[in-house]
Order: sequence, then C-alpha cells, then structure tokens
Amino acid sequence: MRASNYLFSTLRDAPSDAVVASHQLMIRAGMIRQVSKGLYTWLPTGVKVFRKIENIVREEMQKAGSLEVIMPGVQPAELWQETGRWQKYGPELLRMKDRHDRDYCLGPTHEEVITDIARNELTSYKQLPLNVFQIQTKFRDEVRPRFGVMRSREFVMKDAYTFHATQECLQSTYDIMHQAYCNVFDRIGLDYRPVRADTGSIGGAYSHEFHVLADSGEDDIAFSDTSDFAANVELAEAVSLKSTPDAATQEIEEVYTPNCKTIAAVAEFLKLPVEKTVKTMLIKGVDEEGENTIIALVLRGDHTINEIKVEKLKGAVVPFEFASEADIVAKIGCQPGSIGPRGLKEAGVKVVVDRSAAVISDFCAGANKDDYHFTGLNWGRDCDDFEVADIRNVVEGDPSPDGQGSIVIKRGIEVGHIFQLGQTYSEAMKATVLDENGKAQVMHMGCYGIGVSRIVAAAIEQNFDEKGIKWPLAIAPFEVAIVGMNYEKSESVKEACDELYNSLLAQGIDVILDDRKERPGVKFADCELLGIPHRIVVGDRGLKEGTLEYKSRETGDGEDVAVADALTFIQQKLA
Amino acid sequence: MRASNYLFSTLRDAPSDAVVASHQLMIRAGMIRQVSKGLYTWLPTGVKVFRKIENIVREEMQKAGSLEVIMPGVQPAELWQETGRWQKYGPELLRMKDRHDRDYCLGPTHEEVITDIARNELTSYKQLPLNVFQIQTKFRDEVRPRFGVMRSREFVMKDAYTFHATQECLQSTYDIMHQAYCNVFDRIGLDYRPVRADTGSIGGAYSHEFHVLADSGEDDIAFSDTSDFAANVELAEAVSLKSTPDAATQEIEEVYTPNCKTIAAVAEFLKLPVEKTVKTMLIKGVDEEGENTIIALVLRGDHTINEIKVEKLKGAVVPFEFASEADIVAKIGCQPGSIGPRGLKEAGVKVVVDRSAAVISDFCAGANKDDYHFTGLNWGRDCDDFEVADIRNVVEGDPSPDGQGSIVIKRGIEVGHIFQLGQTYSEAMKATVLDENGKAQVMHMGCYGIGVSRIVAAAIEQNFDEKGIKWPLAIAPFEVAIVGMNYEKSESVKEACDELYNSLLAQGIDVILDDRKERPGVKFADCELLGIPHRIVVGDRGLKEGTLEYKSRETGDGEDVAVADALTFIQQKLA
Repeated sequence: MRASNYLFSTLRDAPSDAVVASHQLMIRAGMIRQVSKGLYTWLPTGVKVFRKIENIVREEMQKAGSLEVIMPGVQPAELWQETGRWQKYGPELLRMKDRHDRDYCLGPTHEEVITDIARNELTSYKQLPLNVFQIQTKFRDEVRPRFGVMRSREFVMKDAYTFHATQECLQSTYDIMHQAYCNVFDRIGLDYRPVRADTGSIGGAYSHEFHVLADSGEDDIAFSDTSDFAANVELAEAVSLKSTPDAATQEIEEVYTPNCKTIAAVAEFLKLPVEKTVKTMLIKGVDEEGENTIIALVLRGDHTINEIKVEKLKGAVVPFEFASEADIVAKIGCQPGSIGPRGLKEAGVKVVVDRSAAVISDFCAGANKDDYHFTGLNWGRDCDDFEVADIRNVVEGDPSPDGQGSIVIKRGIEVGHIFQLGQTYSEAMKATVLDENGKAQVMHMGCYGIGVSRIVAAAIEQNFDEKGIKWPLAIAPFEVAIVGMNYEKSESVKEACDELYNSLLAQGIDVILDDRKERPGVKFADCELLGIPHRIVVGDRGLKEGTLEYKSRETGDGEDVAVADALTFIQQKLA
Repeated sequence: MRASNYLFSTLRDAPSDAVVASHQLMIRAGMIRQVSKGLYTWLPTGVKVFRKIENIVREEMQKAGSLEVIMPGVQPAELWQETGRWQKYGPELLRMKDRHDRDYCLGPTHEEVITDIARNELTSYKQLPLNVFQIQTKFRDEVRPRFGVMRSREFVMKDAYTFHATQECLQSTYDIMHQAYCNVFDRIGLDYRPVRADTGSIGGAYSHEFHVLADSGEDDIAFSDTSDFAANVELAEAVSLKSTPDAATQEIEEVYTPNCKTIAAVAEFLKLPVEKTVKTMLIKGVDEEGENTIIALVLRGDHTINEIKVEKLKGAVVPFEFASEADIVAKIGCQPGSIGPRGLKEAGVKVVVDRSAAVISDFCAGANKDDYHFTGLNWGRDCDDFEVADIRNVVEGDPSPDGQGSIVIKRGIEVGHIFQLGQTYSEAMKATVLDENGKAQVMHMGCYGIGVSRIVAAAIEQNFDEKGIKWPLAIAPFEVAIVGMNYEKSESVKEACDELYNSLLAQGIDVILDDRKERPGVKFADCELLGIPHRIVVGDRGLKEGTLEYKSRETGDGEDVAVADALTFIQQKLA
C-alpha cells in the first residue's frame, strides 16, 4: 500500500469521552469513528487488523473441525419464546416489529436459531457430533455503551455451537475447542489466561473464560503463583488457611462503640486488627414453606461478600438482596451496623459463617444492640448452631484451591467464553436424535464465543506506550513501513524506496510505503501511533553510505542496514 | 474435507414455496434453510460458495484501489433525516427504537453514513479521490420476500463509495470500477452484461447495471445483435425504423366497432394489421399554473408504454397515473376504449405521439365517441399539433439506438449496479473540501453495489440441469470429489482414496472425500446435486486395473485415469 493512496485519518488528540487507552488510540490511529452511541465505522486501518484476527479465528475453528455457517442477524420472536428468553432477556435484546407487525429481535446470540437448525437437520446419533461456527455482527443494546469497541452495541462475535449424543462426547469436543482457543490467542500473540468461570445467564454447567491480562480489565482473575490454577474471582473458591480456630484466651465483653457504623471504624476505635473482627450482613431468604426469612452472613472484617456464591446458598433469594433496615430493626431491635452472630439463632435468623471467619478466635462482633459490640467472642463457647460456607471473594495471599501456592489477582479483559450448555436449550426446544435403540434422545450442547472486534481493543490495552500502539506482528495493520525522506523530490530516495517496496510486496509482506508530501516528524509519528512493528527509513544521507535505517517499534532499538541486505534483514525480523 | 465430518443436509424434494430453480436447488443441496420469511441460515455448503465469491469481490475491489471499511448495520435516524430519506424511504426501511427510545433503522444502503464519514475526515482536495468499500449484511423489509436469497430481507452487499473534487475524476474512477466489476464476473465465470440503467430512487445521473443472463431473470435487457450496446428495457431508447410517414392513400372514415374494448379487438374486428392501429391512453398531468390537466399518449397498437420515459415528459404527474374514467367521460364524452388523437387538442388535451406511432399512415384510432373508430387516418391531414417523443418500451427487431444492428431482448438478474451520484448526497449533507483556492467545494460522489449473496443464486440460475447445480469452478463448494466405493470395508479403496485425497490437499486443492457409509447412488446423487465440477470414483474393480474413474459435471463425460497419473490429471483439469 502506498500511503498517498491510503486513508490515515490520524489525530493528535482523542475525544474527551474516550477514557481507556484502546479507545483513545483506536480513534487517534484512525481505526474507528463513532456513528452513534456504541455504533462505529471501522476505517481501513481498523479493518486491516480486524480481518487478520478474523482469519486466524476462522482457520483455527476449521482446524478444530468446526463447519462455517451464517445465521440471520434478525431473528423471529417465536424461537426465543420457545426457550422463554423472549420474556426473560432484558432490554439489551433489541426488539422490533417488521412491516407486517411481526416481532423480531436483533440477535445478541444464536442458541435458539442453531438449536432450531439442529432439530430439523439432525435425526440420528450417527450424524453427531456436529460442530458449527459463524463470524457475525451481533447487537446488544447496552444501557451505557463505553470504551469504544470494547463495550459497543454492535460487535463481531465468532460463535460456535456443538451437538452431542452424550456428555462424554461434549466433554471431548469442549477440550478440542479449549485448545483451539489457546491456539487463536497464541497465534495472535497475546498474554492471556483460560479461567474457570460462572456460566451466567446463558445457562449450563461448566465454563471457561479467556482473559487478556491488562490493567484496564474489568474482571478480576485469581491465579495460583505456582500452579496453572486460574479462575474468575466471582467463582474462585476461597480457602481458609487453617481448619479450626485456636482455643479461646479472652472472656466475652460487651463494649460501647459509639458512632462506629462500619467494622473498620469499630476496629480502629477498639484498636483491634480488622482480621480479629467479623461483619454480619442480613439478606432476604425464603424458607421451605415459602415464608420470607432473614439469613445472616458472617465474614471476617477485611473480606468482601461474593454475591454469586451467596445466591447458591439454600434459601437465599435470587437475585441477591439485603434485608431492609426496617425489617432488621423490627426483627433484631438494632441498626444494621451493630448486628453480630451471637443471639441471632434465638431471633429466628439462620447464621452462615464464611470459612475464614469460622476459624478465628477472641474476635469482635456486633452485639445486636445499637452502639455496642462484643470483644473476646469465640465460636462454640459464645455462639453456636451456625453453618459454615464459602461466601467471600478470594484475596491475594489466600491459599490456591488446588493446594499449590497462593493466590495472585490480576485484571483481565474477557475475549472468549466457552460453555457446556448441557440440555438446557435442546430440552426446551425438543432437539432430539434417535439413539442406537431407535429412541429419541435429547442432544447435549456446547457453545463457544470469541469477541473478534473486542480482541482488537484488548490487544491494544496490552500493547501500547505513550507514542501509540505496539501491535503483535500477526495482527499489525502493516508488518513493515518504509518511510521515504523527501520522497517526492529525491530521485535516489524514490528509487530505493520503490525497489524495496516492490521486493517486499513480491514476498507477500504487508508493507506500507510512506510516499506522502509530509514532514518526517509527521510520518514517524503516524508510524508509531499505528504501531507498525518494523520501520525502514530511506534518506539521502544513508543512501550515500549505502545504508537504510531500521527501527523496531517493540524495543525502540535501531540499526543501519546495508541496502543490499534490506530484504533478507526484514525477512529475518518477520520469521 | 471428509464427508463423514461434513454436514450435507441434502434433500430429495424442495419445499412447495420454492418456485425458482436456484431456490429449490439451494434448499435441496443443503446450502440454505429458511428461519423466517426472507431470513436464511447458510449451511456449510452455502457458506463455502459465498466466501469464494466474497473473496473474489474483495480482491478485485482492492486491485481497483478501494479501501475496505465496515460501517454499522444499525444507523441513527438523524443522518437519514439530513437527506430527507427518513421520510421518503418506504416501509422497506426497517425503523426501530432503542432502549432509550431513539430512532434507528437497519441499513439497506449506506450513502448517509459514508457521506458523514467523508465530511468529517476529508478537508482538502489533496485527499481526493477517496474510494472505500465494505462487504456487509443489509436489511430490506421486502413486502413479499421470495425466490430464496434472490429477494430476501437480509442479504450481503459489497457497497463501495467514491468521493471526488471534479466530475472528470468521478468519471475516471467510475470507469475503473466498471472494469473491476467486469473482472469480478469474469473471474466467477458468469455470462453477464453491463447495461445502461435508470438510476431509480438512489438518485444521480449516470448508471450501469450488471446482469447475469438467465431465463428466470426479473429484468428485460435489450441488446444489439451486432454491437456491444446493452440497456435495461426500462431505459433503452426506442428508435423508429423510418423518419416520416408514407403519403396518405385512404380517406378518413368513421366506422362502427361495437364491443371492441381493446385495440387488438378493433384490429381483429376490422381485419387490420395491429401495426396499422394506434392506442391512446390518457394520463394525469399538471400545467404551468399547477392546474390538473390530462395528457394523451399515442402508441402503435402493438407497442407498450414505458412509464419511466413518460414520467420524464413535461407536465406528467410522478408517479405515473392514468386519468380516471369519470374524468375521461366528463372531458371527452366517451369511454377510454374509444379515445383517439383526432380532436383531443380541441378538447384541451395535450397529445404526445410515440416516435413509431408518428410515422405510420392510413391508420386506425378511436373516434372519441363510444363504439366508433376512424380508419384511413393520417397525421397532418387529419390530426396535427402534437408532440413526438420516445414513450414506449423497445421490442425485438427495433433498430439498435447506436445505429448498429437490431435489438434482441433477454432476461437478466441484476447482480451489480454502479451510479454516478453527483452531488445529491454531498450537497444535502454539506460534504465539502477546500479546493486549490481555499474555497469550500461540494464533493462529487459515486456508489457501486454488488449483491454478493444474490450472485450465489444467479450463478445457479445460469448453471443447472435436472440433476442439480453445475458450478463454475471458481465458486464451487469443492473443486473435486473423491467417491470411495465401499470405502469402509475395502482396505485397498480406503488406501487409494486417502492417498489421492492427501496429495490433492497438499496441492491446496479444495477436495471432499466421500467416505460415508452410504450406497454409491446416494453419493453420486449428492455429488451431482452439489455441483462439484470434477469427480473421481475409486472402486475395487478399477483398482485391479490400476485405474480410477473420472467424470466431469459440466459435460457429463467420463474417462479412466491411471492411479499414478491422477494428481497430474486433476491439476490439468483445474488449470
């Protein structure tokens, strides 16, 4: 590509609403432009990166044995009604009516459509497993689209779906797809982690997310510092360092703690380490007769509650909801800030103590009396008949749940998600095949997503500096830039540039020749902003010595290269 | 691809609503499935063909210097309001509201979005010309979607847009794009014609359609039988064989023509050749003062009216509308079936005579009196003060407008359309650049569409027989099929199949190995239905002689090939 025929559209400044680096840099590098909130046009530089990622994804899906299909973006309501999602899916599902007043939606995902295909096309277990994928524009009507293409309303997904006669077959394809995902991110050249994850609204039993590690990530990922354990903090098991509390050494005492509304304030007021305190939160529950109840959750003062874990407790209301202050006062007789585990059982409240809170001794807790706390409290002696459960978020330093090493937490950007859906959708939509005995058997399903457009942004979040983007080679908009100094005036520069350009093109190298009538500073800045991995500067001064100037975007290192060696040199850099 | 891992989904019969061959065959060959009216899922065989076409289109666009972009499918109403199309565009534009109650539409075309991009990104004439394209799913809410993907609601277009400082520059890029379109259809291997066309609702001045010739086409294309003249019948100039009428030889006579409601009936009743009659149609018009008027259109009895030409007449109402029977009776005093040109001027009706009707003599026409016609009528002597214009459709045998040869009419399927839009959109949206003198200058625009998904259907309409599809090699789902006879039981067949399969794969040949446990008849039928150009059958009988059986889908011809020569043989067939 000659720069004089190209649309750069680079900008010195990003718009003020672009707050994350990838959003700012994608605007500045002329990769995207906003058309409306959460809707973008991809300009040529953006499309080049996007297509390289798309091609890697397609190739790896095909290698994994997945067959490409294309389902419609506009989907009829009838299919979504069969699974109940027409009603259940929130306003992110953009619903609309066609000219005949029939209901449709813009597909954010395609489980219903593919299950409909599967039940029509598949009749026998002999046709299984089936593995299909598509790469397609989807729509999710985000209430607050942000971060550019990271959380836009239109986005491109690779979504794959598999169908199986047995759970074992599903597991084996799931493993193949897991490996294919690793291959995709390895080839793109990203630092990523596959992590165990919650299955969320899509349903199903077993799931992994693929996260690109970056400080700007929205998710917290818990890793072991020694093994390959990795899980979303939402899901990571919180293990306690010990299994039983030390023996009591203090007597229980009721102390006056005026105006201490939080456990941190109490600890400071009483000069106690916060690890020697517990906080007690009351949430709404329902008992076996369907009556409203209250459940008390007891955590160590320095820990935080994990709502997903709590929602799995027997009797907890889903979605998670705190008890109202009025209910608490009526039931316990004090404000929420003074609640503690001792005596709650007698007030008819079930007590659930987090594993780590259950192994401390001589601790402090609310006294269920406004402005009073107990100190020297000990489980068993002062408070018994409680359940122990894992209800908190892991923190750094926790033992890794696999028993190897301790937990480290990093931020990640979710770019992939694979699920074992089981029979949720196939059951609802009666997607069956005949088994070996001629009996109808509900199929097992897996689904597998990659955010193709999102990877573009995630790759930038992991690879940039103050000058711009630093693309991994495999997805750079151009692999090599040739910058001609005074190209339009110096015949020898023009000649050397054109010759190198043509010889790189002939080798299939994706090269841009900057032949624009611009100052060198402008060309260098564009080259760095666009993040082109390898740069060759061609100038009269060097040519007199028979050399070109090479610079690596990754390291910033430069060196002179003999004109005659330039092609070989570049080929080695790209190898 | 091994057939045992592939999703065939072939059917013996097509659904009853599939009336055209391509629709029937795409369903039967397992290429598409309907999800909802006009919305289809593309199955693996369909996607393979689709992607081959997409890649050819993309490569030819890039060769023509067009840069790839991706615009959003969902577009904000504001942009369409700027050009007035939000109001003007009919119900084919699917409008919807997002969760914040803002107006959007599903884009059927992208002039507004790209003009918005151009006015923001382009500031100087030095940045021109700009040529960008995208390949994208579009939506048109057809009132009656039909013919499968030929006229579906969702479809994939390649749409390109160009911006220019001058009309000359637009013309030169238009010529380049015209050639790129020819390259696309040449590479795909279709019999097509570029034809001059009406610009329709998209506006602009100069336009060509690209038609794939096929009997099932919806458009009539007029060609010269000797030159390369080609135009849509809607637009083709109708030339008369002579320039002046012969001298009158008959006297005018009023004859009784009872119950003759049509000119054909009159000609038969009077035993006159229909070429010696004229029919007169009255349409609504508006005069210079804005008053409603009536215009009379006079055509030879065997010719048909061309509404597009009529709408260009001065004073004609757009869209074209016939005068009501009540108005005719009130103004002329007779029923529409007895109207004729003589005396209309006196009744205040402007008379427009088609070129071919204006050169006949001694003809028959309505007498403006119920159940009476004139015979022996002659222009000038019996009826004068009329305009002559081209208002009819061309017919076969007409002289070609370029003066070379006669007109032949064939049916075509429109698969591409290129337009010189001029300044229609750039003017409305104030898309300007600064010219050499620093003055703001409205840009000139071109737009260029190819129906990528439609080409799949059009290619079938041109290439099929009673057994199925006969793909042009460049877009066949597979180039070669290897059919193993008794593959699962015969070790020697399996070995020969696998070896040939692997050696073809190694050469980058797109091959399917039919290793399914199916009867040979099923495999052959699928192979022919899918239209795979080259078939090699591997069986024990042939292997004993050291041969394989080759068959061409195109010609149906077969021959035996030595096992050792098979690879070279296939390579020659594909060359």
